[in-house]
Amino acid sequence: MTKTTTAEAFMGPFSFDGKSSIAPPPPWHYVADFITIECTVDPDVLEKLLPPGLTLNPNERGLVTVSFVDWQACTNGAEELLDPIRAQYKECIVLASVQYEGKPMHYCPYIIVDQDISLARGWALGYPKKIGSVWVTRSLGVTSIASPALERGSFFAGTVAVKDRRLADGHVEIIGPADSSAVTFGSKPIVALRHFPSMFEGEEDKPAVYELVRLQGENVKASSVWEGKGHLEIYDSATEVLSALKPLSVGRAWRYSLGMINKNNYLLRDLRASEQ
Amino acid sequence: MTKTTTAEAFMGPFSFDGKSSIAPPPPWHYVADFITIECTVDPDVLEKLLPPGLTLNPNERGLVTVSFVDWQACTNGAEELLDPIRAQYKECIVLASVQYEGKPMHYCPYIIVDQDISLARGWALGYPKKIGSVWVTRSLGVTSIASPALERGSFFAGTVAVKDRRLADGHVEIIGPADSSAVTFGSKPIVALRHFPSMFEGEEDKPAVYELVRLQGENVKASSVWEGKGHLEIYDSATEVLSALKPLSVGRAWRYSLGMINKNNYLLRDLRASEQ
Amino acid sequence: MTKTTTAEAFMGPFSFDGKSSIAPPPPWHYVADFITIECTVDPDVLEKLLPPGLTLNPNERGLVTVSFVDWQACTNGAEELLDPIRAQYKECIVLASVQYEGKPMHYCPYIIVDQDISLARGWALGYPKKIGSVWVTRSLGVTSIASPALERGSFFAGTVAVKDRRLADGHVEIIGPADSSAVTFGSKPIVALRHFPSMFEGEEDKPAVYELVRLQGENVKASSVWEGKGHLEIYDSATEVLSALKPLSVGRAWRYSLGMINKNNYLLRDLRASEQ
Amino acid sequence: MTKTTTAEAFMGPFSFDGKSSIAPPPPWHYVADFITIECTVDPDVLEKLLPPGLTLNPNERGLVTVSFVDWQACTNGAEELLDPIRAQYKECIVLASVQYEGKPMHYCPYIIVDQDISLARGWALGYPKKIGSVWVTRSLGVTSIASPALERGSFFAGTVAVKDRRLADGHVEIIGPADSSAVTFGSKPIVALRHFPSMFEGEEDKPAVYELVRLQGENVKASSVWEGKGHLEIYDSATEVLSALKPLSVGRAWRYSLGMINKNNYLLRDLRASEQ
Repeated sequence: MTKTTTAEAFMGPFSFDGKSSIAPPPPWHYVADFITIECTVDPDVLEKLLPPGLTLNPNERGLVTVSFVDWQACTNGAEELLDPIRAQYKECIVLASVQYEGKPMHYCPYIIVDQDISLARGWALGYPKKIGSVWVTRSLGVTSIASPALERGSFFAGTVAVKDRRLADGHVEIIGPADSSAVTFGSKPIVALRHFPSMFEGEEDKPAVYELVRLQGENVKASSVWEGKGHLEIYDSATEVLSALKPLSVGRAWRYSLGMINKNNYLLRDLRASEQ
Repeated sequence: MTKTTTAEAFMGPFSFDGKSSIAPPPPWHYVADFITIECTVDPDVLEKLLPPGLTLNPNERGLVTVSFVDWQACTNGAEELLDPIRAQYKECIVLASVQYEGKPMHYCPYIIVDQDISLARGWALGYPKKIGSVWVTRSLGVTSIASPALERGSFFAGTVAVKDRRLADGHVEIIGPADSSAVTFGSKPIVALRHFPSMFEGEEDKPAVYELVRLQGENVKASSVWEGKGHLEIYDSATEVLSALKPLSVGRAWRYSLGMINKNNYLLRDLRASEQ
Repeated sequence: MTKTTTAEAFMGPFSFDGKSSIAPPPPWHYVADFITIECTVDPDVLEKLLPPGLTLNPNERGLVTVSFVDWQACTNGAEELLDPIRAQYKECIVLASVQYEGKPMHYCPYIIVDQDISLARGWALGYPKKIGSVWVTRSLGVTSIASPALERGSFFAGTVAVKDRRLADGHVEIIGPADSSAVTFGSKPIVALRHFPSMFEGEEDKPAVYELVRLQGENVKASSVWEGKGHLEIYDSATEVLSALKPLSVGRAWRYSLGMINKNNYLLRDLRASEQ
Repeated sequence: MTKTTTAEAFMGPFSFDGKSSIAPPPPWHYVADFITIECTVDPDVLEKLLPPGLTLNPNERGLVTVSFVDWQACTNGAEELLDPIRAQYKECIVLASVQYEGKPMHYCPYIIVDQDISLARGWALGYPKKIGSVWVTRSLGVTSIASPALERGSFFAGTVAVKDRRLADGHVEIIGPADSSAVTFGSKPIVALRHFPSMFEGEEDKPAVYELVRLQGENVKASSVWEGKGHLEIYDSATEVLSALKPLSVGRAWRYSLGMINKNNYLLRDLRASEQ
């Protein structure tokens, strides 16, 4: 039993073996079922949510996807799969079409998950996660009214709530196999915002961490993708900025599974200079 | 808007349209992923948990299965699938090998679920459900360390907790396709105990409802069944009788999906006479 | 270790010592902090929620209270207080002014709690409980912006949600000590509806239990009662009948603590005859 | 609607009005009921959990307190008290007797809370919080078996669980009023560790934030403090470092209420240099 180093532990609480950390150190292996709904929102509102360095993608101004995702994740040894409360979580993620130095990317202004392991990993990667409640319809591969099949006419729904209030719900009504224009997770580079506040007097506007980063998901593999018509309702909220992103129009939607590995970020720009 | 009848509402809270009921009226359509672990426990202990009319199956004295189950359920219109918090729940169910009038059956002395809809449905059907926390490893059909495939060598685990205490965890280590001796849900008739207490003075030992019933799952369909080696730990508990069922030996285990419909029970015996 | 009788166990799951029961046998000792808001709702709607034998109180047609309650409860030995997850729960309860055989009483058409022990006890007593999420502002006896004092000008709030949707929130804005007209819990007899469905074919409209009962809380003791102005919002809901009880006017409100014992019900009328 | 600055928003998700932030910006006003249990643990183990710059207090080697705390907190306008799910949380906190540059202080190696607002605030302040389940016995000021009074012979208990496993439970058995040697929250300065990982390749051992800070709770006011005999059990855990802090002896314990304000930290030492 030797003293922990911060590299072993990744995040606190720190312990000799690093196992107490709110999230284990990467690499992290993920699989998920995605329900993704494409819509357009007020571009002026969306633009105000972007950090320095990002602008709206001029070809897709106001385009966002809202996804409801059922995740299972683990580290190299996969020991979390023997204790699945440590592996599973559900998520609602908003991704906006932006550009950085002229390159089209996706940026996440709002995301909810239902487990702290995922929340901590998200903060480290650059996702502004909060805890909420997310539910996603499943297909179980048995013919039944209770199990939508992956075929024309089936419905797959997702819902998200924060602090006892439903924020949004939506679903895809499947039409058929998608073509290559489907907007799946990672189909464009993801740019994220790592941020950690200062707590020192007079430094309220000088965050300790404020970095624009590019996510580097590896081995991203999507299953066959099903496309359909999207439906999405976003409800009023006194606190949640999701309610400012009510869809002006709802378009296509997709249902697919995905595998992925996350290990490191790539630094695009340290924003601490730009705010001072 | 007319006055509710109890038939429309099934259970309280009663409303004009019956929709407020803690559980909707049957028929109920279910699908599930099952992880089932077979083991033997002390037959004398198990026998003491049986209601009047049931005895241990003499050919399988002390044999039980412990299953961790990931359910999705809905009514005829399947509207719950658009709001999956109303459709999904997870369960840990113990089924004991018993006999009633010489016929081999399965009886459930202990069962935990994580949603009140399922709890209420269970009480109506004859399952002694309590609320707890259950987790079940999933397979998502994407190749990844994070997604066990349905193949030799894969692990699928389940865990159950009540009131912040882990009660049991187990897993199946898959070997290959099962043969017809697999103990799947409904492979024997299920006998259950409908019970509702009296609250009147002096009637503490005269339950208002005390019925031995046979469940009548319809359209029971299992997917292909995978068999493997079972692992199961049951932990000490000051309150939960599950801890009295620690396995003397752990045997086979299975992983499969299942579809089913529940609508009515069949009365085997009204036990109110036998207690008085 | 002898075989359990149903008297020892109260409810399932049955075990040798009765401790596995979803709720322990009575007597049950309770204490609570109450926030109670008085309002009037559409009397025609309210009347449709009453079971046979009850009518609206003609002097208070449409009068209800909505209370948000922070409970702690235990059995004679108080052992639950050493494991407070088994003792504490929060509740939102609606009580309507009714009469039975000309006597003014309170009847509960809708109630939400956040623990299964309380849900089961409620079903046994005659309260149509469902699981939800309830929150109640506390006073902690330390001077702070974060702790409303029991004095003029303080606010005490309550909220209730079911399945990720906020159903109602309200608060009392304290003016001063209440007089004897305060509508505290038990200030009128409480009439309740014990109900348990049949599950047999053709008996959908013949519940196994369908009893109008009078609750018999003993040793009911309220602390000093604070009165103020009530505020209450009830939100739309596709399923919950609470949304049909939107207040036409909101009146007085109270904040107080209460102690009580529940042991038995008194049968007013067996309603099974009246439905057939 | 103008663009958010990071000062307004404190933490993400960022929005125009800052209200979407996982935690609102300080100052934060808190009140709480504390159950605090003093014990000694293996000093060699404890020492290995200290960050650079801290050593065990040589006069109290191995001395820690474990507290179970029922919090209510809000910002200046106290609007959270009208929506108490945003104000209330429960916590289990371990504080160790340490010294920094020869000055006695308390340091927190392990802490569990049940709300994300508190978790985020904790990470910003320097507490290594994770999400768990905590319960604390209450006194409600009504005479009842269900409500321990603040008097000799009463018991007040606390419990903590993480990921469905009970980690510890304990209680104080009250003897009488405490003297000035009671170890209440803030009775010594609190030193904390602000930490945020890097995510860049090759920088696994170079955290982006790694600061030893002094907490500066303002207006710390304790109610009268009750002292008694402490009881504490810490259970085995495969992941949580709390299990390495099993008490060698359990001593005094206290029950009291507390008010406090947190606004800023004071930097003691930037540890990034010391790790490289």
